[in-house]
Amino acid sequence: MKCEIVTIGTELLLGDTVNTNAAWLSRQLALYGISLYQQRTVGDNRKRIVKVLRESLEENDIVITTGGLGPTVDDITRECAAEVLGADLVINTEALEKITGFFKSRGYEMAENNRKQAMFPAGSTILDNEVGTAPGCLFEKGNKTLVLLPGPPHELTHMFELHIIPYLEKITGTIIHSRTVRVCGIGESEMEKYVLDIIEASQNPTVAPYASMGECKTQNYSFS
Amino acid sequence: MKCEIVTIGTELLLGDTVNTNAAWLSRQLALYGISLYQQRTVGDNRKRIVKVLRESLEENDIVITTGGLGPTVDDITRECAAEVLGADLVINTEALEKITGFFKSRGYEMAENNRKQAMFPAGSTILDNEVGTAPGCLFEKGNKTLVLLPGPPHELTHMFELHIIPYLEKITGTIIHSRTVRVCGIGESEMEKYVLDIIEASQNPTVAPYASMGECKTQNYSFS
Repeated sequence: MKCEIVTIGTELLLGDTVNTNAAWLSRQLALYGISLYQQRTVGDNRKRIVKVLRESLEENDIVITTGGLGPTVDDITRECAAEVLGADLVINTEALEKITGFFKSRGYEMAENNRKQAMFPAGSTILDNEVGTAPGCLFEKGNKTLVLLPGPPHELTHMFELHIIPYLEKITGTIIHSRTVRVCGIGESEMEKYVLDIIEASQNPTVAPYASMGECKTQNYSFS
Repeated sequence: MKCEIVTIGTELLLGDTVNTNAAWLSRQLALYGISLYQQRTVGDNRKRIVKVLRESLEENDIVITTGGLGPTVDDITRECAAEVLGADLVINTEALEKITGFFKSRGYEMAENNRKQAMFPAGSTILDNEVGTAPGCLFEKGNKTLVLLPGPPHELTHMFELHIIPYLEKITGTIIHSRTVRVCGIGESEMEKYVLDIIEASQNPTVAPYASMGECKTQNYSFS
């Protein structure tokens, strides 16, 4: 089971936002034993988003995107996904009702551009967003799955836990066990001597030494 | 001038480390007006690092990597770069002396595996690391530049400021001006109405609205 995370947003490419979403999602995938070989970040540009989604879907079983599901003209992930999937972008009336209700319950009038947040590639499973206006979607095509999630971290984590974890539990049964040994007083290279036999011998567990400020770490990952 | 950032390390793919390096480097590149269309993260895997470096160098003028310059067996960025560049991996005696000196000055004996930190693709300009043992390198081939920098953030930022900023100042003269307008009381879609004319009209400045916890932001980027 191979996955790729594609985080979308020009703010990430300008370094205005640190990509905590990629780290958080990666950690969740590791817990479910899903191999993640690459993370990519692209800006709000149709040509480049389409190219990256196409390549990612070709090389992976699951592609998870974050970002670009907002109501404004720079939010184009839905359109790009529809193009890559060869599906029409259609309005989902149930999603539209929920978005309208979201504003109504807070005493606001819905802006016209929020309507586009209810548009998804035809055939998608819509993923409710209970903490924001951007629903996500999950699209299965053959043995490939494309998941679109919003960028704001509190919306992303909420929706991942609500919708994607049950989906992953259904399709996989492997868990990664991870253990970190923190060391101070010796450097990374000296530390390696003590664990070189397990580094060299095995694929499971895998062991890697890291240097950080004030400490070195040996991290051990095993699968079951 | 197109650049790509390739951050290397399995710890990033497992979500154990938040990729602050990518954000910090992106911000620096933006200040120097260098277009960054993609960031990629790969693990400590030779086949995949080589593939990503090959693709990145094909599509960009400058590729900057972080990570994989340590002394341990999982640190393979040097080897992968040599393969992609078609250059031999050779020991740089000056770099080796500096690494040896680094340990001597601290009263430690250098471990044998630190020798490999002085090995770089033949033809590289070695980038001194005054705050750690991992030198970096800069390799120019035709009109392409590959820069290898270490992963620990304090080493990366130090070396970027010391070596790469003067290099960028030499090859470019453009700067991005960025301004953020923070808004509360209205949502992202309502806010867009006030700036839609500049969003739609122009490439310079570019304007994008973002939703965050407790506020919305309109960010404006212009080039000069």
